[in-house]
Amino acid sequence: MKILDSVNNPQDLKKLNKEALIDLAKDIRKEIVNTISKNGGHLASSLGAVDLTISIHYVFNSPHDKIIWDVGHQSYAHKIITERKSKFSTIRIHGGLSGFPKMSESKYDAFGGGHSSTSISAALGFAVARDLRNENYKVVAIIGDGSMTGGLAFEGLQNAGHLKKDMIVILNDNEMFISQKVGAIAGYFARLLTAGMARRFERKVMKTVSRFYGLGSSFGKFMKRVKVMLFPGMLFEEMGFTYVGPVQGHDINSLTTILENLKSMSGPVLLHVITKKGKGYYPAEENPIKFHGIGKFNVETGKRGKGEVVTTYTKVFSDTLVNLAQFDNKIVAITAAMPEGTGLDKFAKKFPNRYFDVGIAEGHAVTFAAAMAAAGMHPVCAIYSTFMQRAIDNIIHDVALQNLPVVFALDRAGLVGEDGDTHHGSFDLSYLNYIPNIVIMAPSDENELQHMIKTALDSNKPCIIRYPKGNGVVGTTLDKILCTLRIGVAKVLRYGIDICFLAIGNHVKTCLKAADLLMEIGINVSVVDMRFLKPLDINTIRKEILIRTKKIITIEENTLIGGFGERIKSFLCNEGIIVKCIGLPDKFIEHGDLIELRKKYGFTPQNLVKETLKIL
Amino acid sequence: MKILDSVNNPQDLKKLNKEALIDLAKDIRKEIVNTISKNGGHLASSLGAVDLTISIHYVFNSPHDKIIWDVGHQSYAHKIITERKSKFSTIRIHGGLSGFPKMSESKYDAFGGGHSSTSISAALGFAVARDLRNENYKVVAIIGDGSMTGGLAFEGLQNAGHLKKDMIVILNDNEMFISQKVGAIAGYFARLLTAGMARRFERKVMKTVSRFYGLGSSFGKFMKRVKVMLFPGMLFEEMGFTYVGPVQGHDINSLTTILENLKSMSGPVLLHVITKKGKGYYPAEENPIKFHGIGKFNVETGKRGKGEVVTTYTKVFSDTLVNLAQFDNKIVAITAAMPEGTGLDKFAKKFPNRYFDVGIAEGHAVTFAAAMAAAGMHPVCAIYSTFMQRAIDNIIHDVALQNLPVVFALDRAGLVGEDGDTHHGSFDLSYLNYIPNIVIMAPSDENELQHMIKTALDSNKPCIIRYPKGNGVVGTTLDKILCTLRIGVAKVLRYGIDICFLAIGNHVKTCLKAADLLMEIGINVSVVDMRFLKPLDINTIRKEILIRTKKIITIEENTLIGGFGERIKSFLCNEGIIVKCIGLPDKFIEHGDLIELRKKYGFTPQNLVKETLKIL
Repeated sequence: MKILDSVNNPQDLKKLNKEALIDLAKDIRKEIVNTISKNGGHLASSLGAVDLTISIHYVFNSPHDKIIWDVGHQSYAHKIITERKSKFSTIRIHGGLSGFPKMSESKYDAFGGGHSSTSISAALGFAVARDLRNENYKVVAIIGDGSMTGGLAFEGLQNAGHLKKDMIVILNDNEMFISQKVGAIAGYFARLLTAGMARRFERKVMKTVSRFYGLGSSFGKFMKRVKVMLFPGMLFEEMGFTYVGPVQGHDINSLTTILENLKSMSGPVLLHVITKKGKGYYPAEENPIKFHGIGKFNVETGKRGKGEVVTTYTKVFSDTLVNLAQFDNKIVAITAAMPEGTGLDKFAKKFPNRYFDVGIAEGHAVTFAAAMAAAGMHPVCAIYSTFMQRAIDNIIHDVALQNLPVVFALDRAGLVGEDGDTHHGSFDLSYLNYIPNIVIMAPSDENELQHMIKTALDSNKPCIIRYPKGNGVVGTTLDKILCTLRIGVAKVLRYGIDICFLAIGNHVKTCLKAADLLMEIGINVSVVDMRFLKPLDINTIRKEILIRTKKIITIEENTLIGGFGERIKSFLCNEGIIVKCIGLPDKFIEHGDLIELRKKYGFTPQNLVKETLKIL
Repeated sequence: MKILDSVNNPQDLKKLNKEALIDLAKDIRKEIVNTISKNGGHLASSLGAVDLTISIHYVFNSPHDKIIWDVGHQSYAHKIITERKSKFSTIRIHGGLSGFPKMSESKYDAFGGGHSSTSISAALGFAVARDLRNENYKVVAIIGDGSMTGGLAFEGLQNAGHLKKDMIVILNDNEMFISQKVGAIAGYFARLLTAGMARRFERKVMKTVSRFYGLGSSFGKFMKRVKVMLFPGMLFEEMGFTYVGPVQGHDINSLTTILENLKSMSGPVLLHVITKKGKGYYPAEENPIKFHGIGKFNVETGKRGKGEVVTTYTKVFSDTLVNLAQFDNKIVAITAAMPEGTGLDKFAKKFPNRYFDVGIAEGHAVTFAAAMAAAGMHPVCAIYSTFMQRAIDNIIHDVALQNLPVVFALDRAGLVGEDGDTHHGSFDLSYLNYIPNIVIMAPSDENELQHMIKTALDSNKPCIIRYPKGNGVVGTTLDKILCTLRIGVAKVLRYGIDICFLAIGNHVKTCLKAADLLMEIGINVSVVDMRFLKPLDINTIRKEILIRTKKIITIEENTLIGGFGERIKSFLCNEGIIVKCIGLPDKFIEHGDLIELRKKYGFTPQNLVKETLKIL
């Protein structure tokens, strides 16, 4: 019998002795690997945090104590331990468990996650509320070294250090950012590690210091090392935290002892724990980036089912940019900790000097890009649609207001599937549309994407290109020669007199299919690839479409409020035109298979046919 | 003759000897005090930065070298020195100079400002671009201690420390944040100051350390002081910067010498300069908060013209919240460095334990508030509309998605007047409207504001209340008893059969006046105070209005795209209704007198009359 069979909740876990906890960790890792091999998910970080998770639940009393996971993609073990073992096989499946902590899913999820760097702010909120209400629970935030690069984490640290509330921040340092050398914080963490090992030499060093101190600046580098050895964690100490660490994050025995000690400490404490991504599953240990977020794979071999044959939008973006950058040395590329996800890894290899991964710092990425544009470069800033929500003010204030030619590549726009409500790019057309001076485009397929990248770079304006996650359109051929599109001009793909489909982005093809279906029953449809949300080509619609039909259906993979369809309506409102809009409803969209979700929310030729028949 | 008469640009300034620079500073201060006493503006910070500004322009070569002002409200001396002396009397006046640096205004403004904490990211962008293009200019960012609390500044520091480009960040520490004790960084800066003074005791201290080190934790506090004395600026050093300071910021002689030395240093350097807000003008030195942003005043006495007689929205918000908080000890108030501006200073005095100023850290403010709501409190988060642009993702991801009852008070919504394009609250209805789960309201006057605050707190939902800067509506009486409004229900104020005015927020009164004017020429107007943008009360419009008239004019002090009017259109598009929307056009709105701007953009009864006549 597996130990895991006897553990349904944290109380069960507390009954085990420490030896058994180690076996429990093994069982949990097996469970995670098996499930994720079928469902896909964030494997490497979750495996790395298993021992830490067990130790936390052994020492603290969830849900009385509040355990807050930053991002939360490392919370699989937490889910298994907290009454969700039997449902774990449904993780990331439509109707099943979420891949992230969710208050609505479990009382053990004190605060939800998905986007990075929120946990310290959230933990402080709980700690302050607790003291005001004279309650007595403990608050623990677990945050990765990557999340620590976000400005929000700094804001949280700095307010927490000021308010001096009892709370524990566990820095789960899996050295990803050290190995990738992203940001000064990575170097700092690396020095802390050295310091931990060298602690035993402290006295010796101290002697040396007192001998050489004051001999001049040639000792600068030496002194820097000395400082960290003498005062590890000083950065956190300066922020008002008590720093403890670094400690090994896979030794449950000592972790539980340390946490037990920290429990009684007062004020904010930062525990620095070193873990290994993918721990306990060899292929993930070897290649943690591949196993960060992964689809289905074979447990034995660690290999994914089939190679991806269809081209993705990401790949086309990646290839096009590399291609253009060969002929334009002003092109620079910026990402916020997503080199693989955005496809900029290829650019990074080819043009290391022109590539900038700024860490999980979207705001900085945008303002940094704005200044590079002001200084005469052609910056391309690639960030997922959902994460760009963090840099809207930077787009408004630093880019658009100053009319600086930054190109934004918003990958993962529209539905993303299994990552669910925190990750869908449901809002970008709405959160960008009202910003003056900018151009917003969305390609109908990967071929149009290529041309749009060139168009944006040639435009000398702030430009947004938003495109969906995953595979491109089957059968698309990529033009060899890139051309510059006319900004703000739509393309009529097909003329018909009964109704018109206006589409922006990836559902142009859905419209064409629906038009074919309707043709079979004698209904003639116009189809327009709008290409640009802003400027919106209302002229073409008036001149080419409205002379044929007064009935319109719009389609966009974005929330309807403030999106493309409403904009069309606002232009045509007073003209007796019937406009029906297809898009996402005004709610947070659940997780699930992408195809399934698109079907559910009406992004199919069949639904277009249905809506057409309703109107006619 | 004044020295200033001979200085039109930085080249003129370089011809002066250092003695003359001191006189120049006096002239510039007089010029600033005189002009701002007439035009209003950011007086205290600009006076504090005069000597620093002169020193920078003496040592560096603007516009060849790039000088970047964070926020930029301290850049008045910079404007005077850089060819804008003759226009300085027009500052903040419609058509005149902007109160902030603007690329479009002058080649000497390397990068614009307005919102906080952008300068380090911008400076890094210039430094990187410079090196890629093999250019050889210097880059200098000047950032206040307040701006340093923003996460964006941290993100910038951390990337700059990593990339190791030659650039200089001048921390203009006017001790505002130290005196107000906001955030851990304030404490850190305070310790740095102590360190600076105590530097001469270093060796002595060193001896003491080596004697006592290792004797146990009782020396913790002592050691903390020692650390800073030994290694001042270590926080910045850990981020990869060379720290220099603290130095006195009003001694032009030594400042120029120090800057001259820094010029040749390689890598990122942080110079810590101590200045005094309001320096050189006694009333401002005495009361820097009052003189931070001030209207017209008497130069001799430092007193403002008339006391403000009309009640402001801010004051009503302030009073109402204090009133409600007396009976509900779950109410907590959060602001991001705007206690006076939001009116929360009164709450802070009355309920210091329930008041949180988190520094210029809007993102943290929102997530912190979300967690407090999750922990059972009733948080009210008061942030200006323009600054809330920085926390949109936190509203989406931490508040709305989790459906947590945080109340957001968005002061300065709509036009703000003299602060201009970076500060108008032109976008909030658009950047909030598409977010699921939230309630958005806008009061027609201060009396409705009171009721809305109560409504929001009673609702148990995430609620936004947006209201304008400045004076309330003349003649409004405040109800003694607060009531809870029905959420999502509009109020029909007047019935007429010829046309209907639908208004949200402060222009309900404009509509009523227009209706009166139209009545005189026999036109009967319905007027509806919509109260809620979300949920939008389309039912009342259908049932009470559309049975009377098919002609509608909407009015909102927000950009039209994605705002209230477009939402109305989208509901009524297919119904043969004529809808005309009045709101802000799709551009960044310039600065100028608030009444003048409102007139220009059509927020007057006269314009409503004109539009009505066009339709009828």
